[in-house]
Amino acid sequence: MSEKEVSVLFMPSGLRGQVQAGTTVLQAAQRFGVDLDSICGGQGKCRRCQVLPQEGEFSKHGIISRAEHLSELTETEQYLQSKNRLKDGKRLGCNARILGDLVVDVPEDSQQHKQHITKDVTAYDIQVQPALRLYTVTLPEPDMHAPISDKRRLQNALANDFGLPILECELSQLRLLQKALDKSDRQVTAAVYQHQQIIGIWPSVKKVVYGLAIDLGSTTIAAQLCDMNTGEVIATAAAMNPQIRFGEDLMSRVSYVMMNEGGDLAMTKVVREAFNQLASRAAKSAGIQLDEILDLVVVANPIMHHLFLGIDPTPLGTAPFTLATDQTTILRAADIDLNLHSEARVCILPCIAGHIGADTAGVILSERPDLSEEYVLLVDVGTNAEIVLGNRNRLLAASSPTGPAFEGAQITSGQRAAPGAVERVRINPETLEPRFRVIGCDVWSDDPEFAEKSAKVGVSGVCGSGIIEVVAEMYLAGIIDQDGVIGLVDGKDNSRVILDGRTYSYVLHDGDKTLCITQTDIRAIQLAKAALHAGIRLLLDYMGISKIDRIGLAGAFGSHIDVKYAMVLGLIPDCAIDKVGSVGNAAGTGARIALLNFPSRLEIGEILPKVEKIETALEPKFQEYFIEAMALPHKTDPYLELSKIVTLPPLKAKAKIEGDGVKDRKRGRRRAKV
Amino acid sequence: MSEKEVSVLFMPSGLRGQVQAGTTVLQAAQRFGVDLDSICGGQGKCRRCQVLPQEGEFSKHGIISRAEHLSELTETEQYLQSKNRLKDGKRLGCNARILGDLVVDVPEDSQQHKQHITKDVTAYDIQVQPALRLYTVTLPEPDMHAPISDKRRLQNALANDFGLPILECELSQLRLLQKALDKSDRQVTAAVYQHQQIIGIWPSVKKVVYGLAIDLGSTTIAAQLCDMNTGEVIATAAAMNPQIRFGEDLMSRVSYVMMNEGGDLAMTKVVREAFNQLASRAAKSAGIQLDEILDLVVVANPIMHHLFLGIDPTPLGTAPFTLATDQTTILRAADIDLNLHSEARVCILPCIAGHIGADTAGVILSERPDLSEEYVLLVDVGTNAEIVLGNRNRLLAASSPTGPAFEGAQITSGQRAAPGAVERVRINPETLEPRFRVIGCDVWSDDPEFAEKSAKVGVSGVCGSGIIEVVAEMYLAGIIDQDGVIGLVDGKDNSRVILDGRTYSYVLHDGDKTLCITQTDIRAIQLAKAALHAGIRLLLDYMGISKIDRIGLAGAFGSHIDVKYAMVLGLIPDCAIDKVGSVGNAAGTGARIALLNFPSRLEIGEILPKVEKIETALEPKFQEYFIEAMALPHKTDPYLELSKIVTLPPLKAKAKIEGDGVKDRKRGRRRAKV
Repeated sequence: MSEKEVSVLFMPSGLRGQVQAGTTVLQAAQRFGVDLDSICGGQGKCRRCQVLPQEGEFSKHGIISRAEHLSELTETEQYLQSKNRLKDGKRLGCNARILGDLVVDVPEDSQQHKQHITKDVTAYDIQVQPALRLYTVTLPEPDMHAPISDKRRLQNALANDFGLPILECELSQLRLLQKALDKSDRQVTAAVYQHQQIIGIWPSVKKVVYGLAIDLGSTTIAAQLCDMNTGEVIATAAAMNPQIRFGEDLMSRVSYVMMNEGGDLAMTKVVREAFNQLASRAAKSAGIQLDEILDLVVVANPIMHHLFLGIDPTPLGTAPFTLATDQTTILRAADIDLNLHSEARVCILPCIAGHIGADTAGVILSERPDLSEEYVLLVDVGTNAEIVLGNRNRLLAASSPTGPAFEGAQITSGQRAAPGAVERVRINPETLEPRFRVIGCDVWSDDPEFAEKSAKVGVSGVCGSGIIEVVAEMYLAGIIDQDGVIGLVDGKDNSRVILDGRTYSYVLHDGDKTLCITQTDIRAIQLAKAALHAGIRLLLDYMGISKIDRIGLAGAFGSHIDVKYAMVLGLIPDCAIDKVGSVGNAAGTGARIALLNFPSRLEIGEILPKVEKIETALEPKFQEYFIEAMALPHKTDPYLELSKIVTLPPLKAKAKIEGDGVKDRKRGRRRAKV
Repeated sequence: MSEKEVSVLFMPSGLRGQVQAGTTVLQAAQRFGVDLDSICGGQGKCRRCQVLPQEGEFSKHGIISRAEHLSELTETEQYLQSKNRLKDGKRLGCNARILGDLVVDVPEDSQQHKQHITKDVTAYDIQVQPALRLYTVTLPEPDMHAPISDKRRLQNALANDFGLPILECELSQLRLLQKALDKSDRQVTAAVYQHQQIIGIWPSVKKVVYGLAIDLGSTTIAAQLCDMNTGEVIATAAAMNPQIRFGEDLMSRVSYVMMNEGGDLAMTKVVREAFNQLASRAAKSAGIQLDEILDLVVVANPIMHHLFLGIDPTPLGTAPFTLATDQTTILRAADIDLNLHSEARVCILPCIAGHIGADTAGVILSERPDLSEEYVLLVDVGTNAEIVLGNRNRLLAASSPTGPAFEGAQITSGQRAAPGAVERVRINPETLEPRFRVIGCDVWSDDPEFAEKSAKVGVSGVCGSGIIEVVAEMYLAGIIDQDGVIGLVDGKDNSRVILDGRTYSYVLHDGDKTLCITQTDIRAIQLAKAALHAGIRLLLDYMGISKIDRIGLAGAFGSHIDVKYAMVLGLIPDCAIDKVGSVGNAAGTGARIALLNFPSRLEIGEILPKVEKIETALEPKFQEYFIEAMALPHKTDPYLELSKIVTLPPLKAKAKIEGDGVKDRKRGRRRAKV
């Protein structure tokens, strides 16, 4: 039995491989570079390497995973279970031995680098004018001869003191009002939502409440916790989207729903749980209570949007890709199982079309191309690339199926942006020798201190920006030709270009772990960039223009890539290079704008219906452009002369946050008095 | 031990007495005339006599009740428990022996006469114009080139086909819309609430939905299930208010809350459960599904109103008797744990003041004194009497603490109106011999067939209308004097007037059970009628009038009492006797009006703030009038000449339902097309 080889696949990383039956889960994880925590060295003492075995057929991966494909509970595990320290079907990675094909989920708590999901806060000048405001009033004593209810006295006081209309009051808060009046000499503070409804009551004075802006991505969920008075971001938190265990990309999640009765409910449940965990973490780190959070704005792509709301996303998987709703959805947070203040509201920004989500609505809200005189191109790259093109007269939007290559996924040595991931690459065109930097280490790999300084994080894989740089550098060094074929370079030392079956690979790193860039990887990048390029070209056609005035790159992709390399590969079209730049996490910023500035929620509802949606899948030209864009651009293009990493003035007045990304450098005119 | 005497109190009847330790609960119930079902004669076979022993200090009754004051489970009971036929702590009344002081709850299911709670449907000409309407539309096919969401296509279809505004749609229904469109060639029916919101979606055509009008009384909860298209009452259901086990009258329930942490939550829970049971029964009897009920209107007195909504009623127990809200409350039924359609709405009509509830709002909505040229007096007698006086120019309202005597409670031989209860009494002024009728038997007690015909129901007590008649007849026969003192009548056969300690009693019936009217009973009736009279007189003072044009008596009291006797006792003031009459269950009718006629909900919200509230407890004159009203009126008053039972034309066109009270004799102009 010990000679038997079995397959094991780790989620959410997607890392996989073959091991001998009898190997522990922790050993396998370490072998494949899976981020599974352990500090006792596998002695069963630290309890950090807890994993969750999955059951079912993972047909995409050719694995049928069963609980019995793990060894039985050891005494250590039984003891931990009895003490309630090993729960919900989890196993100790260092104790459980793999006996058959297996899919293993590594929960966030068991990931060493769990804190390192980077969707930073992008500074932005937001006029704080929230949907939720606090008003403190003192009610008159009740008069037995002219009996007026508590509610009516509160309504009257709010009308007299603040000129508010007669407001409805949630029943749960009416209950609190009664008690609050007793406690505090009839002085109470009311939280008023949208100028319409009293959704919070506190005895005496309550000075501040909080709101959350959440960017719900297929891979990552990122939350910004804001002070609703000042607009300041007082904490951030991010987590992996736990739906990853149901399918790594959007379409595999839709497939999961189609194949599994109740699959949508399961995914809805886990994503809402993740929201609750994020909210708890953000509240804890800011030192506030969960019930002080009263407003929440969410942006998400259409499938995440539907799954979050508990709507079946299946129709989004096939033509005509019909959304259940393309309008702003406002709900009571408790109604979708979110544990904030009992009357907290959730506002989910609207999706634009079946492939263009509320995240793009957030990008538009952040960048406001609808106010621009110039032609603006906004690109938000995830598993799909959402593309918005236009100006104050006309806006077009499309989604292009780039696949996850730009995020480092489905790349041989790819990984997500986490410590140990290669993010910068240079190849000496003379020696073909590479040097690189990894996340979590501040020196290049050719620095004498690199071995020491990188020891903690290691060199574990190549993330999205690293992939783009290495491919571009290989092209510039002549290791790949314009068609993307890897080959030997005449008259150079080709020791790093190795034959791998019938194609060549480039050895980027040869240490504890070997990082190779294969022909398959180059093809994946070519396909991704061709999809993006073709989508943009289609929109240019529709708009009837050939030149773009400004390009804004949104999201982690936009923040990390070097624009020069994006141009080398032809990811983005011609544009003055000083007019191309990152616009930060524009989707998340859009969510924060909607959270802090109520009129913007109404504005986005007016802008979106006017956006023209282009369905790339239906356009014959898209295929044509796609094929043409597979080749790499000519190296003689003038902008390739630029050699330094370009940092740009942003489209609007904004700057990347420095430091830990927690404090907002508020430069805002805070006009609204709250 | 067998010589020990112990106290036992039965709820909800309030019947009590002493028994020897060792007596079974069923024997005790039979001895005191408690309505506890049994058909096997106490052999432990029929399982009908199930009772629920209560634990706690019932200090008002001087009883400390403990579970161990009942004998241990018998083998029969253990067997039934094991078969799940004896649940939730219940005991078999014929098996459980009373060993110590005990309070026992007789659940509704164990009451023989459970079906005989009479709050009948009062016919009423209602213009059917509901808050909830159904619209069937066929949506256009989705167009990939001009993507429009399901929701927006529905909104557009409703706007185009029916001229509706753009309507919000509940998330839960959006989920259903997606599925419904698949099923039915894009034809769906939407339920629209208040012209604002889509709260129901069905595939294809849905022709009718239903609504419930509920009159939530301290003692009884009565539901009318209506077809929302025609307005027809298709079923009724009624039940005891299960809160009775926490206290028989309103103030004892408030005390319960004050004395018991969480007592309000417990009462809120049981009343909502009772709503669910009523709704189930009504739906079952009408052959519809619970999820076809989408609208619900509730009327209740202020304390029931608060407890139903989960608001602490304690402030209503002490000056200044401040309501938490005096406005219409609209909620999602599911939010208060009601199991109807998932998006069904509940509208709870507003209370007027701390002692004047939404039930009175219902009476006003039913009788519309605000539209009357004449001065109208409306009296709704329960444990308190709510009094409304006025006309189109001015309305006054007050509540007067009559106590429960008019309902037969706290009267020696009193009981609620159920089969076997004496409801009509005549005393021959020559012989002082009484004759009477009981509910459930259609002949008088002096009829030769009475013994046979009454055998099934027995003669178990005297209900409210019976009490009033017997006291009035005793007065007319000279057995009591104008001060209410029972005494021997000169020159007559006084064999029915017996000395009972230091006072006399009148023996109304001497059969299996002896029914006596004691001096204490006369005092209770005097106090009740004095309170009512004083309240009315106070309102007359305020209004500056001495004569009333019309008097409407609402509720069971108004339906059952003979107006002549009410006048003999001075319950109601001078008025032409043909202008006095029952207005039926006006509170329940008001609820039905609000259910079926949406504009009336808005109207009542406008009328109530204009009603002047008189707090009787604060009026020095009230005490004065109260003392003056203790005496009985002079027998020379002209209206006492009338000798027949008066039936009156109603204030508005309406008539008492005949038969089983289920079918509404709809005579309505049904103007609104639904």
